[in-house]
Amino acid sequence: MHVFDEAIALQPVAEHRFGGKTSPAYWNMVGPYGGITAAVLLNAVLVHPQRLGEPLSITVNYAAAVAEGEFTIQATPVQTNRSTQHWIVIQESVDAAGNKIVASTATVVTAVRRETWSATDHPAPEVEAPIAQVQAPRRAPMFEQMQWCKQYEMLELHGALPHDWDGQERTDSRSLLWVRDAQPRPLDFASLMAMCDIFWPRIFLRRALQVPAGTVSLTVYFHASAQALAEVGTDYLLAQAQGQVYRNNYADEVAQVWSRAGLMLATVSQVLYFKQ
Amino acid sequence: MHVFDEAIALQPVAEHRFGGKTSPAYWNMVGPYGGITAAVLLNAVLVHPQRLGEPLSITVNYAAAVAEGEFTIQATPVQTNRSTQHWIVIQESVDAAGNKIVASTATVVTAVRRETWSATDHPAPEVEAPIAQVQAPRRAPMFEQMQWCKQYEMLELHGALPHDWDGQERTDSRSLLWVRDAQPRPLDFASLMAMCDIFWPRIFLRRALQVPAGTVSLTVYFHASAQALAEVGTDYLLAQAQGQVYRNNYADEVAQVWSRAGLMLATVSQVLYFKQ
Repeated sequence: MHVFDEAIALQPVAEHRFGGKTSPAYWNMVGPYGGITAAVLLNAVLVHPQRLGEPLSITVNYAAAVAEGEFTIQATPVQTNRSTQHWIVIQESVDAAGNKIVASTATVVTAVRRETWSATDHPAPEVEAPIAQVQAPRRAPMFEQMQWCKQYEMLELHGALPHDWDGQERTDSRSLLWVRDAQPRPLDFASLMAMCDIFWPRIFLRRALQVPAGTVSLTVYFHASAQALAEVGTDYLLAQAQGQVYRNNYADEVAQVWSRAGLMLATVSQVLYFKQ
Repeated sequence: MHVFDEAIALQPVAEHRFGGKTSPAYWNMVGPYGGITAAVLLNAVLVHPQRLGEPLSITVNYAAAVAEGEFTIQATPVQTNRSTQHWIVIQESVDAAGNKIVASTATVVTAVRRETWSATDHPAPEVEAPIAQVQAPRRAPMFEQMQWCKQYEMLELHGALPHDWDGQERTDSRSLLWVRDAQPRPLDFASLMAMCDIFWPRIFLRRALQVPAGTVSLTVYFHASAQALAEVGTDYLLAQAQGQVYRNNYADEVAQVWSRAGLMLATVSQVLYFKQ
């Protein structure tokens, strides 16, 4: 079983209710990688027997650190129309004192889609083809403990982390990279979801400082079908992120993810907290 | 009482539960303007006695048409931390058959913010100062019935609706406009929320066709304090929107809203359905 499938595995425990377990392979600093939490929340909808259509949009709010070990997810379809379905998803964990807490919430829209006129206003940047390579060592000790990084192959084309964490302010917060699962796995909605959170906080690039920072809310819109994702297979995705504003503890970013063939698979926005 | 305050007025009916009423002044085609629905959902958090801090992010999912008349909103703080609070908000209405339905859902994060390093990667475009003017007549009969349009003064700088609905595909989906309440009202989170949905579906510009289209999910990140909004007062806001992709019934857009002084007040993303 692929390490990603282990990490997002869910067991039904009651109507609309599932049990899961955190994965050491996707551990971040004080909890799981945000992308794997988003993927397991989405997976509760994907495996739900009442699901209509495929994922169109998801917003995940990170409310508290998910404790190591077991958690439960409640995924409820609150409104079902002819071609869309609206979901509320709640993940419960336990805090340090052993009390049950809401660790994350999500809303999801699933939809049955039909062929229509289609176009893009944001073509993929023209870049060199990816060449598989041994991962360069991370550029700061803090990244050594982030297990999740090892689950992805990331080939940075623009906007890598600074060589020198010198605190000198930069002007460019754009990053562009090829990314795929380190251990090959055919793309699907859950793994695309996880990769939509692959970007370092833009403030690391802008300030060349390792200030405490993390995602508070993450929104992804899906623009491809399950079949189109399956056709991407285990190939690299082209992922781009750009900050817009940083002010008083919070910053945002927008991002796009394309297939190598230039199909826009997902568009992303998120708001992050930061300190100092 | 300002027509906007009437439209977002809520009466507490039980713990976490409020009653409201749709406003004819903000009627759209088959339901209220999406921006006024988002504003009244946010208002349930704003007036809630347990609220911590000010709005940081909101995602509104439009699940079904809100029927004319009364509705209820349940706003529940599901997780409260030292400086952030996570909300789930559900609006119930009745459908044509008289059954209770979920018309919309939202998640909201509120936060207590402190002064930090701040910067922007997306300065406001340089444009001419707004000059108040009599509204130009709308360019298609469909807009005549949209009451909500009359509640806003919109001065279009770029990307107005096409003069000729000739179905000739355009390449540019960016719009830029000055906007404020037609009847002056000092800016606050609720009115800023409503103005974040001011943009026509980008597909109207791209295709010069009035295809059926409407917002499915709207996400706004707030980047200013209540005090900063109050200082904007009744002045115009500069609002910009840009599409990214249109495929198989759904399209997205990203948007930014600045004060005249160039302070980024909010960043926006949304996904819309369209037909044909």
